[in-house]
Parts: sequence; structure tokens; C-alpha cells
Amino acid sequence: MELLEKRIKEEGIVLGHDILKVDSFINHQMDVGFLYALGKEFKRLYEGCDINKILTIESSGIAVAALAALSFNVPMVFAKKSKSSNIGSDLYCTDVTSYTRGNTNRVVVSKKYLTSADKVLILDDFLAEGQSLLGLIDLCRQGGAQVVGCGVLIEKAYQGGGDKVRKIARVEALARIAKMDENGIEFV
Amino acid sequence: MELLEKRIKEEGIVLGHDILKVDSFINHQMDVGFLYALGKEFKRLYEGCDINKILTIESSGIAVAALAALSFNVPMVFAKKSKSSNIGSDLYCTDVTSYTRGNTNRVVVSKKYLTSADKVLILDDFLAEGQSLLGLIDLCRQGGAQVVGCGVLIEKAYQGGGDKVRKIARVEALARIAKMDENGIEFV
Repeated sequence: MELLEKRIKEEGIVLGHDILKVDSFINHQMDVGFLYALGKEFKRLYEGCDINKILTIESSGIAVAALAALSFNVPMVFAKKSKSSNIGSDLYCTDVTSYTRGNTNRVVVSKKYLTSADKVLILDDFLAEGQSLLGLIDLCRQGGAQVVGCGVLIEKAYQGGGDKVRKIARVEALARIAKMDENGIEFV
Repeated sequence: MELLEKRIKEEGIVLGHDILKVDSFINHQMDVGFLYALGKEFKRLYEGCDINKILTIESSGIAVAALAALSFNVPMVFAKKSKSSNIGSDLYCTDVTSYTRGNTNRVVVSKKYLTSADKVLILDDFLAEGQSLLGLIDLCRQGGAQVVGCGVLIEKAYQGGGDKVRKIARVEALARIAKMDENGIEFV
């Protein structure tokens, strides 16, 4: 998607070999009008797929998924990173390692909100090694929900996560980075 | 706001003395169309206040703030709970104790995204003891940003946080709970 690639080129900051900061419009400050437009692109890509739920993971996927869910006119559910005092005990859970933070979190979804009646679109901001998407797909499997597909804003295609996830689900990435370093970002 | 009070009465679950679960439409599964309508109510309440930024806190405020920011047509910034590997070092920080989780988190905002040019509306899902709002107000003060006011979906008025915050800022709560227990919820 040209609009997103342009914005990444203009505002993205590459740190070291692997980290792309898009803090000015996606990950810390959010250009919500822009994210809403990206959500509509997922709607276009998954037109006719009868999606009735959007699933994402705490925290960076929440705004992306909420704004997309508005276009789809379906509820959004986010997998929670840890068990807070009021989430209850009837949960599906899976372990996800964060590429950016380097730690592993157990994420949980209440059994009430992921069932065999659900046709799910899984959304997230980044796809690097694929751990988040694979974890969310695992949660859907546990709940008997159908994974219609996944959508991410930015795929770092050289990290191989996309290849792994595409073996088991449709994946749409709005921008796919072939390589990046201090000299610039090259898209697929 | 009657629409929200009605929904809380229908779907809210009171746990013990203090915890209100609104997992089915606000805190785990999200009715994004409903949250978008609540965001429009904040827009109406703060009409003419020249708000140019919305600030919230990771994680439960993110969807509320993102959907409201869409109506305000301004960027949204969320204070991050811990320092991930790529947020940078030029930060304002403050400590916030979570009522629900019972732990204290250092939350940070990049100095780039909170400046003296900002007229800020602070949004969150719940107001209990006021720690999150006070922390976010502190971050604005550090950045020299003007706090136009705060908005929360649900205030547990009997916990006193609202009284504390109202001493230093305007606070709009869309539903104010006077008391609640297993027998029901009573609004102010």
C-alpha cells in the first residue's frame, strides 16, 4: 500500500539492524485518521469473507484493531498479557515471545469471547518472527473459531515470520519490508 | 449518559465490593461502534475547547482514546507502561498504581509527543482512585502541555479519585456509580 510505504519512508527510523520505529503515527503517537484508512484497506482485502470478530493482542495492536473493527462493524477482542484480578478463570492461554521486547508473555482470552461461531480476522501492527500471529491462531484453534486470515500493517519479510504463518493462514501485509538499515528502507 | 448506564446495568458484573467487569463491551471484547458513540459524547462535552491531542495510558484506555480521537480529528498518544527496547531515552515518566491490578508501573511518554503546543484531553476507561489521571496530568505538566480536561467512561464516585482530580482539572464521567454490590449498581 503506497500510502503506508510513503509514510514509513518519511517518518520511520531504523535502529540497528532490525528495529523500525514508527512512533510518530503508529506505536506511541497515533494518527488515528490514517489508521482508520488502513483499517478500511483490510475491509477491502477481506470483502465477502463474513468476518464477525477481530482479534488482536495487547497493546500495540489494540488501536489498529479497534479502528479496523469500526469499518467491519464487528466486535474486537484483545488477548490480554497477564491475568489481572478481574478477568476470571475460564480462559484460553498461549505463550508469545515479543520480538521488540525480548520477553515471553502468557496471553489469555476469555472462553466467552472466542467460540466456534466466530469467523476471525487477526490483526496486529508488526509481523517479524510471527510469534504474535501464531499465538493468536492457537487461541482461535483452542476456541474452535475459524481463522479467516491475518492482517498486519508492516511485515519485516526478511525475518521469516510471514513464511511461517502463511503455511497455515492467509496473511495480508499493507507494507512489506525486504531489507532496511541506516541508509534506508527497501520494500518488497 | 443513559445509554452507557443501561449497558452497564445489563452486562456489568460486580465482583466483591469494588470490581466492575465490563468485559463484554469495554475491557476485553469491545463494542467499537458503541465506544465510537461514547467518543462523540466527549467531543460534544468539550466542544469549542480547541483540543489538539488526546492522551491515554496503556492498555485499557487505548481503544477508548483512539475511537474518540477519530471524532476529534486529532492525534492520540498513549503513555507506555515500561521501557521497550525501541522507545528511546528522551522521556517524561511518572509512577501509576493500578487499582485493578494492585501494582505500580512507571509510565513514559516521549518528549517529542507532549509539548507546550498541546491542548490535551486525557481519556481513560475507569476512574477509581484517580492514580492514572493524576499520572497523566503530571506527564502533561512535565511537558508544559495544557490539560483542557479529562474524560472517563465510568467513575466509581464512592472511591474518591474524582474528587481528587477535580481539584486540579475538569473531569467528565459518562457514568458515575454511587454504589454497587451483588444486588445491583446505583448511579449518581
